[in-house]
Amino acid sequence: MVSDNRSGFADCLLWPRSVAVVGASGDPAKTTSRPQRFLRQAGFDGAVYLVNPAREEVLGERCYPSLSALPEVPDHVFVLTNAEPAIETVRECAALGVPVATILASGFGEEGPAGLERQERLCAAARDGGVRLIGPSSLGVVNPRNHLLLTANAAFDEELLEGDLFVASQSGSMIGALVSRGKARGIGFAGLVSVGGEADLSIGALCEATVDDPGIAAYALFMESLQHTDELASFAHAAHRAGKPVVVYKLGRSEEAASLSVSHTGALAGEDSEADAFFRACGFTRVDHLEALIEAPALLRNLPPGGGRHAARVGVITTTGGGAAIMVDQLATRGVRVVAPSERVLERFAGAKAPVAPNLIADLTLAGAKHDVVRSAIEIMQDSGEFDLVCFVIGSSARNNPELAVRAIAECADGKVPLVAFALPDALTTLRLLDEAGVAAFRTPEACADAIAGALGRTVPTVRTGTLLGGGTPASSRVLDEAESAQLLAAQGVARVPSVVLDAAGIAGDLTLPFEYPVVVKALSDKLPHKTEAGAVVLDIADAAGVRQAVARIKASVAAYDPSIEVDRVLVQPMAAKGIAEALVGYRVSPSAGPLVVLAAGGIYAELYSDSTVRLAPVDADTARGMIADVRGLGTLTGFRGAEAGDVDALVDTIVAVSNLAVDRPDVVEAEVNPLSVGPVGEGAIALDALVRVAGQS
Amino acid sequence: MVSDNRSGFADCLLWPRSVAVVGASGDPAKTTSRPQRFLRQAGFDGAVYLVNPAREEVLGERCYPSLSALPEVPDHVFVLTNAEPAIETVRECAALGVPVATILASGFGEEGPAGLERQERLCAAARDGGVRLIGPSSLGVVNPRNHLLLTANAAFDEELLEGDLFVASQSGSMIGALVSRGKARGIGFAGLVSVGGEADLSIGALCEATVDDPGIAAYALFMESLQHTDELASFAHAAHRAGKPVVVYKLGRSEEAASLSVSHTGALAGEDSEADAFFRACGFTRVDHLEALIEAPALLRNLPPGGGRHAARVGVITTTGGGAAIMVDQLATRGVRVVAPSERVLERFAGAKAPVAPNLIADLTLAGAKHDVVRSAIEIMQDSGEFDLVCFVIGSSARNNPELAVRAIAECADGKVPLVAFALPDALTTLRLLDEAGVAAFRTPEACADAIAGALGRTVPTVRTGTLLGGGTPASSRVLDEAESAQLLAAQGVARVPSVVLDAAGIAGDLTLPFEYPVVVKALSDKLPHKTEAGAVVLDIADAAGVRQAVARIKASVAAYDPSIEVDRVLVQPMAAKGIAEALVGYRVSPSAGPLVVLAAGGIYAELYSDSTVRLAPVDADTARGMIADVRGLGTLTGFRGAEAGDVDALVDTIVAVSNLAVDRPDVVEAEVNPLSVGPVGEGAIALDALVRVAGQS
Repeated sequence: MVSDNRSGFADCLLWPRSVAVVGASGDPAKTTSRPQRFLRQAGFDGAVYLVNPAREEVLGERCYPSLSALPEVPDHVFVLTNAEPAIETVRECAALGVPVATILASGFGEEGPAGLERQERLCAAARDGGVRLIGPSSLGVVNPRNHLLLTANAAFDEELLEGDLFVASQSGSMIGALVSRGKARGIGFAGLVSVGGEADLSIGALCEATVDDPGIAAYALFMESLQHTDELASFAHAAHRAGKPVVVYKLGRSEEAASLSVSHTGALAGEDSEADAFFRACGFTRVDHLEALIEAPALLRNLPPGGGRHAARVGVITTTGGGAAIMVDQLATRGVRVVAPSERVLERFAGAKAPVAPNLIADLTLAGAKHDVVRSAIEIMQDSGEFDLVCFVIGSSARNNPELAVRAIAECADGKVPLVAFALPDALTTLRLLDEAGVAAFRTPEACADAIAGALGRTVPTVRTGTLLGGGTPASSRVLDEAESAQLLAAQGVARVPSVVLDAAGIAGDLTLPFEYPVVVKALSDKLPHKTEAGAVVLDIADAAGVRQAVARIKASVAAYDPSIEVDRVLVQPMAAKGIAEALVGYRVSPSAGPLVVLAAGGIYAELYSDSTVRLAPVDADTARGMIADVRGLGTLTGFRGAEAGDVDALVDTIVAVSNLAVDRPDVVEAEVNPLSVGPVGEGAIALDALVRVAGQS
Repeated sequence: MVSDNRSGFADCLLWPRSVAVVGASGDPAKTTSRPQRFLRQAGFDGAVYLVNPAREEVLGERCYPSLSALPEVPDHVFVLTNAEPAIETVRECAALGVPVATILASGFGEEGPAGLERQERLCAAARDGGVRLIGPSSLGVVNPRNHLLLTANAAFDEELLEGDLFVASQSGSMIGALVSRGKARGIGFAGLVSVGGEADLSIGALCEATVDDPGIAAYALFMESLQHTDELASFAHAAHRAGKPVVVYKLGRSEEAASLSVSHTGALAGEDSEADAFFRACGFTRVDHLEALIEAPALLRNLPPGGGRHAARVGVITTTGGGAAIMVDQLATRGVRVVAPSERVLERFAGAKAPVAPNLIADLTLAGAKHDVVRSAIEIMQDSGEFDLVCFVIGSSARNNPELAVRAIAECADGKVPLVAFALPDALTTLRLLDEAGVAAFRTPEACADAIAGALGRTVPTVRTGTLLGGGTPASSRVLDEAESAQLLAAQGVARVPSVVLDAAGIAGDLTLPFEYPVVVKALSDKLPHKTEAGAVVLDIADAAGVRQAVARIKASVAAYDPSIEVDRVLVQPMAAKGIAEALVGYRVSPSAGPLVVLAAGGIYAELYSDSTVRLAPVDADTARGMIADVRGLGTLTGFRGAEAGDVDALVDTIVAVSNLAVDRPDVVEAEVNPLSVGPVGEGAIALDALVRVAGQS
């Protein structure tokens, strides 16, 4: 038994030859009675040992006083006791060389200092003996393929559907919920794990450990908070190499739910936009409908990472006009492009006795839901070269006459273009025919559109591994003043407005500047991140006298704003011509997601409309263009309402330059160009103000 | 039989004593064979007559050559023939005094001029004999209570679940889809009608005809386009009087789908925002998730129209933390306020052996899903006075142990506060227990939150009846120039900037104005709706000389813009001080929804962020305040980021004043105040420009 060997641990995770249940109870009302009952009901392939010093037997089976009393060292131990005894049991596991222990008890990391101390002892005990831990607060591990029901979740009190989807969840009850919803939909599983508190094995590490399992074709992750991102990133690349898509449902779209996950797991939840950026860079598909989490993988397996949802052309074909219109609505509101069949395709339809009226939807209502008609119509669309994805909305025949449209759709599963199906009536039994044929089928139009939009937006993983938290949260950091900040960013390639630094004390009578009036005067201080509020900026100054007056005014108002701040230097800049648009380009290092680049519209509108977008840094030009497309307030750059267009390329260059801080300047913790004035095409983009925070003492 | 009597027609709609199927076919592959088969399978309570001149018998039953050959005049005739013979059949119905005929054939209104002419003949034939028509293009009428399966929809080839929900759909296949989805969810129906082309009976008229049916408790409407709004408005009030809630699912959230409904039904679809405004004024609850259409009514029956979703306090209680967090996310992102239980409530929980940690969610995980614990916890929340609605998220026990949480929830159905339940696992069988107990239960968290948000937003109907289209689309209309427009709106109570009209030809040397310089000069012409584009506006003029120059420049640039326009008069106004915010207040009469008032942020942002809101006009002050809250770009009015707040009351007054055009000026077709400059608190709001279009020749 190679307990500290990864493959060894991986095998013992889902394929243990023997398991031990510590703290098994004979009282069926108790959670702790379930694992034994479930393992026996399902008929686990391996040996099951019960451990409980207080009892001779449990539910008619022999019970051992301790792990060491067992006839062999079990591959996987499920610990059902409370927190303190659980630590004892892990010590025993370490002594015996047990490779994997799953801990049900709570009362660790999420319970303040005392809990953290307890968790440290738990992990230390495991480390000493090379025991890998799942949990604490884990409801267990399930593998339907060998009937391993090592779980205390009540929902497993029934027969399971075997499949090739692997589920890892930060919420314990979710594994049972997904298994039951999958069963109703005819979707089976190759394994499920409740990762609990991730004290040792994180959700990413657990998934990566299973990535070589040939029985696993795709992953569904349920997440409450974003942690251990290095291991998630590593898993992302491994899953991509193995050609196994990953779908994610993450809580925290709302601040309310985000705040919940803090108290629920004791972990700090990053902003939801950070999670979006991280999943995108991982090539994960994030869905917003719970059932899409188990329905989307079938679609992703047929649809490799591509050029983005706006590029793809989706064709909709149907035997129910109304149902297809619902799908078009759901797709279009998610920014998916639905394209109408061309004249040429319509002629082919007619030739195949499948007359279709010219319309956004290929509606077969006239021809009717006949097998041959439906099949030829789908093939015509798949072969037309006009669509990247074909979505079939099945009408009433889906319910009681699968031999008609449903069978035809199933037969087109391996056509030139991936096929997706949504049944308008309730048709669970017939949807299974599509599942088995490998056609992604959906129970609701909302989950179907959610999955299609997500699948079309999927890209190959670009996330960097191992270094995400490099320079993450330094012990101390300091703000550079505007001149230093602009200089640092200029070195990255961010154009800045010319400027002169003057000594505030004595400004010569004949003030000669390297640029024309009118000018702007700003206090230069690392203690004034919000200059305007402090009255430390004076605009539109016509001459040297004006500059002197401005300096006096600034010194006065800053003194009033904060007496502790002494303005000894000022920055003088020419008044910049008003650009086509003003943007905010930001950079920060998130403790969870690592370096991020942010783009927002300038002014208050970014805030009023929460109109900003985030990516993991660094980004390339294409990604930067995608960011610009995300920010609606920057629509003016493309010549809104026939107005003059802005220098998008210059904005792209600036975004890329700022994002490269992640590579060039690990000492930079935070940076912000605000506003960046984007001029007309060809006239560039220029930083009017800048702020940089670097690691280190001030 | 009183054929032209409404109640007579209503009885014969769902409760005919006898039905005739004209054009019945014996070929089971044919749609036209279904009604007979379905009626026999279900065992319709009344007499069924088959009519087909071409056959002696159909599927072993006697077949009559014509309606007049029948032993009695049938109450309800289902016509399965093609368009032209269908008209003949309706003539026969008229001659015999048949009260209701349902027409399956298409080929009428949706098929251009020829189809419209055919439809006119169809309706004329019906009118002459007082026959009320359902359709054309109707898949029929179903009443599970008397086993009336007068439908050609394939989905009715099975036993139906009887209930108290009535469905009316503009999409035929939807009635079958909803019946099957309802059956899967344990939700039954009191009737379903496919309204088809609404040539005679509109969806509103059909629903209103059933509103006194004691077996109908709620309505679910599936709509593709908004038509016959007068009858919908009349139904809205009748349904409200009868205490029967109405849920609507309408296509057209996206322009793509809206354009579909045009070609699909031949009807012109109004803007989706108009439909929103109309449904809101009807007190209908619009949902965006298909299944919410049948799941929401149970909630609405327990929750009378109230003060809006932002006012209501929702409490979330659960046996699964993760599942409840999903619900919080779904609710919060829809603007629903989730409230945490107070200290007092937490103490009561503890006292009832239901310990709950202080949190936004009342999480019973520690206490466990025991019947007594769950029941007391729910009652504590219902009795606390801290919540207007309690949402229970049921964990794994929902699937296999309904005797625990599910039963407890069912027992609290009639508590002080309405109860809503969502089961995290698949638990269709146990959800039925909740349905039967009268607790609104939901299969997905998304539909649950969708329904809750909609239900909390419901108000009592305020829509006016009979006069919606008053002054709708006049034969001709003309634009008033800015001076006339401002005058008309001033009479309504819209403050305007002072102005003088000058003869462009001769402006006296010493130009004396009733206000100070600087001023603005604008061309005054009813032919220049877009003055800025035409270069017909000059700002910031310092003196009389400047005014003369401005007039010359304007005449020149307008001549260049459109030689046919002669500028003979100009409008001079003082330059208005910049307000806190600029808004657009608009008014128009929609052919479908009637008079509407529109509010948007000024400038390009309303367009960039599609940031506007619409209500049926007239509106009261409270509604106007609700509109202001809807427009994010007007967030500056409330003192955004500590900036000065704007005169919201003045904006409210302006919105109300403009909306009153619906009452005071039926001749006004369109009006727009843009921009309306809203000053600081107490300083009012003033129209800087205005445009009015009135009915009549120019």
